[in-house]
Amino acid sequence: VSSRKTAVDPPDGWSHLPPEAKCLWLRAQPPHQSHELFLHLTTREQLELLLALSQSERQVWLRLLPPDDVADLLQAAGTSRGMLASLLDDATRLQVTALLAYKEDLAGGLMSPRFVRVRPDMTADEAIGYVRLQSHVVETVYYLYVLDEDQRLLGVLSLRELFSCPKDRPVRQVMRQDVVSIPDRMDQEAVAQIFARSDLIALPVVDAEGRMKGIITIDDIVDVVNEEASEDIQKFGGMEALHAPYLEVGFARMLRKRAGWLAALFIGEMLTATAMARYQNDIAQAVVLTLFIPLIISSGGNAGSQASTLIIRAMAVGEIGVRDWRVVLRRELPLGWMLGVCLAFIGIARILLWQVIGGSYGSYAVALAVTVGLSLVGVVVWGTVFGALLPFLLRAVRLDPASASAPFVATVVDVSGLLIYFTVARFVLRGILL
Amino acid sequence: VSSRKTAVDPPDGWSHLPPEAKCLWLRAQPPHQSHELFLHLTTREQLELLLALSQSERQVWLRLLPPDDVADLLQAAGTSRGMLASLLDDATRLQVTALLAYKEDLAGGLMSPRFVRVRPDMTADEAIGYVRLQSHVVETVYYLYVLDEDQRLLGVLSLRELFSCPKDRPVRQVMRQDVVSIPDRMDQEAVAQIFARSDLIALPVVDAEGRMKGIITIDDIVDVVNEEASEDIQKFGGMEALHAPYLEVGFARMLRKRAGWLAALFIGEMLTATAMARYQNDIAQAVVLTLFIPLIISSGGNAGSQASTLIIRAMAVGEIGVRDWRVVLRRELPLGWMLGVCLAFIGIARILLWQVIGGSYGSYAVALAVTVGLSLVGVVVWGTVFGALLPFLLRAVRLDPASASAPFVATVVDVSGLLIYFTVARFVLRGILL
Repeated sequence: VSSRKTAVDPPDGWSHLPPEAKCLWLRAQPPHQSHELFLHLTTREQLELLLALSQSERQVWLRLLPPDDVADLLQAAGTSRGMLASLLDDATRLQVTALLAYKEDLAGGLMSPRFVRVRPDMTADEAIGYVRLQSHVVETVYYLYVLDEDQRLLGVLSLRELFSCPKDRPVRQVMRQDVVSIPDRMDQEAVAQIFARSDLIALPVVDAEGRMKGIITIDDIVDVVNEEASEDIQKFGGMEALHAPYLEVGFARMLRKRAGWLAALFIGEMLTATAMARYQNDIAQAVVLTLFIPLIISSGGNAGSQASTLIIRAMAVGEIGVRDWRVVLRRELPLGWMLGVCLAFIGIARILLWQVIGGSYGSYAVALAVTVGLSLVGVVVWGTVFGALLPFLLRAVRLDPASASAPFVATVVDVSGLLIYFTVARFVLRGILL
Repeated sequence: VSSRKTAVDPPDGWSHLPPEAKCLWLRAQPPHQSHELFLHLTTREQLELLLALSQSERQVWLRLLPPDDVADLLQAAGTSRGMLASLLDDATRLQVTALLAYKEDLAGGLMSPRFVRVRPDMTADEAIGYVRLQSHVVETVYYLYVLDEDQRLLGVLSLRELFSCPKDRPVRQVMRQDVVSIPDRMDQEAVAQIFARSDLIALPVVDAEGRMKGIITIDDIVDVVNEEASEDIQKFGGMEALHAPYLEVGFARMLRKRAGWLAALFIGEMLTATAMARYQNDIAQAVVLTLFIPLIISSGGNAGSQASTLIIRAMAVGEIGVRDWRVVLRRELPLGWMLGVCLAFIGIARILLWQVIGGSYGSYAVALAVTVGLSLVGVVVWGTVFGALLPFLLRAVRLDPASASAPFVATVVDVSGLLIYFTVARFVLRGILL
């Protein structure tokens, strides 16, 4: 009994091997193991390998893959698509063509067309026998789907339910009719939310006319959940989603994914220079004000980052929807206020302490402390509210809420934070320093 | 056939109802539906409901839950723990006590002790009959675990394999011996990675002596993956993980989760004020330098945020390990360099353009542009490298890499960014402005 390694792990250094070396290594393994390994590679790796193999080997290996994986492979194959498709048997080619009609991130692109279909008038025992016959060609034997002559889904029953009912009971009387089914054009993120709520290991996919087209199994959903979380996390870090493992993304592609957003944020942040130019005379008169600029604007950015992260994630897992913006605002406004007061308290203490110890700020220490304290409250409240509401705004205009990234929120809050700070300063320090 | 709603969805506004109202609503539903709904509530809601019910109802509802869910419930029950435990039947109480010995986020805390055990000398047909008998008391019927007299795991076979083999073949000859099993003290994040790689719907959990203690099913893994991603995303946004849905966290708890990190970052960022105080004379002589402070330090923060996000996520899904820091450094160093050059180019163009249009920067425009450009390259390279390596550092000292949050990286880079900027300025502008 192995503990940490799975039976399908590739050898160390695998990802650095050229496709030809991978072929050699695979040929040297017992078929059972090399097949298992091949089935668990990424689509890109499977494609590389297939193209490196001889024509006859290619056919054997390609036919190992279930139709949904073949569809992903053909989608990535570019000019080799026709050649690879010609290696499939006719039945599979038909299924794959149907799958290719769907975009990869829709329910239809995730499903497998190989499921157990039964008729409503079969008995439980007949149905079990039927499962036994089909067991090697279907994606899962654990659910049986009851269809009418037009392939419309009438009900579903699990193998477990079939086991615990009398042998001669017709399927029609055992099946559940309140079936959770998934429209073939539903986005994969929504599909993952349904799985997360339902605890089922497979769900049927139906088209607009209620005809069953395939099933989605939960092992694919684990991948979807991981993928969607990676995308959100990367967008949240202020870049485009990679859609591939870090080490597999080439230098040029990585640069493109990151340079675009970084440059956009930079151009946005240039407004801080413009804003500060307006206050150049104030700064010249009260250089001490500049000392607290990074402190104040970054606090707004951090508060905004917290709020936007929370909201983006809660939206992604379906905890809150677009309509909940009022509820969120009612929570975040007092929260931002309290957080701002906390920081203001620390900031004021810091200034007064430095004053007592070193006399750093001369006769205007108290006025300066008041300026910094009030600005912090203003900036943190604004950062929190802006960070919390931006994802709703993006969603309302049909953009991805995850684009309300920490750097993006920080950039907007930096510019407005400067305006808040200098406005407060002019008001409080008038006649003292300005 | 319903499409969007699952059969277990609570009614609208459910989460705002007091527990007593929830009880009333549940009692009014047909038992099948109210039981389903109850089973899919969060642990906290189940507990609230149970405490609001009468003693006799409580027993019925509590006994609906599988042992792993009961264990979670008792863990959350506080002073009611003994009372609730007394309502269980003896067998379940024993199982639950065994589960409670594990921490919630370890494999042992996720597993269910209810699985199908068979002996190696049973025939395939006997085994199928046995599954039929056990089908209503086990978590899944889809895998059969072959154990010896000491409960040591000998092998596993799926119901599907059992179906496609001759009826009189002994289980010993059908079972697979190269079983992937999970140590009972493995962290749930590592368990999720094994599931993501293996495509199986259940995996056995064994203790240090190889005795099988239970199974983990993939539907729980979807929850784990979502949970871990939420935790990472929240930490990444610069706060403590909530461990609960956004709308269910009370005001005081939310404040605590956010105020701590915000205050810590604020105190760290106070170093910027200290750093700038060192350059107060430079600033007084060259106020124009201050205009670009937010621009330069935020660019370092943004570059660092991109790098740390990528690395944290790649670590979380197991794409890279602690040993890969050299590979990462070799990629990020030239990347940071290119990104820095891009931004420097834009920054220099901006200064020269403003100079040509409005003569904003007088005779020292070129020197200023050079200062800003060089600083940008330095700050972006440093931000990228620091952001990429910090997760490795945290991991090396056994802290969570996800603590290398965007705000944390930005705070460190802000302070060092100021030092870089003023050092470059002193060097370039000596004799011109300083």
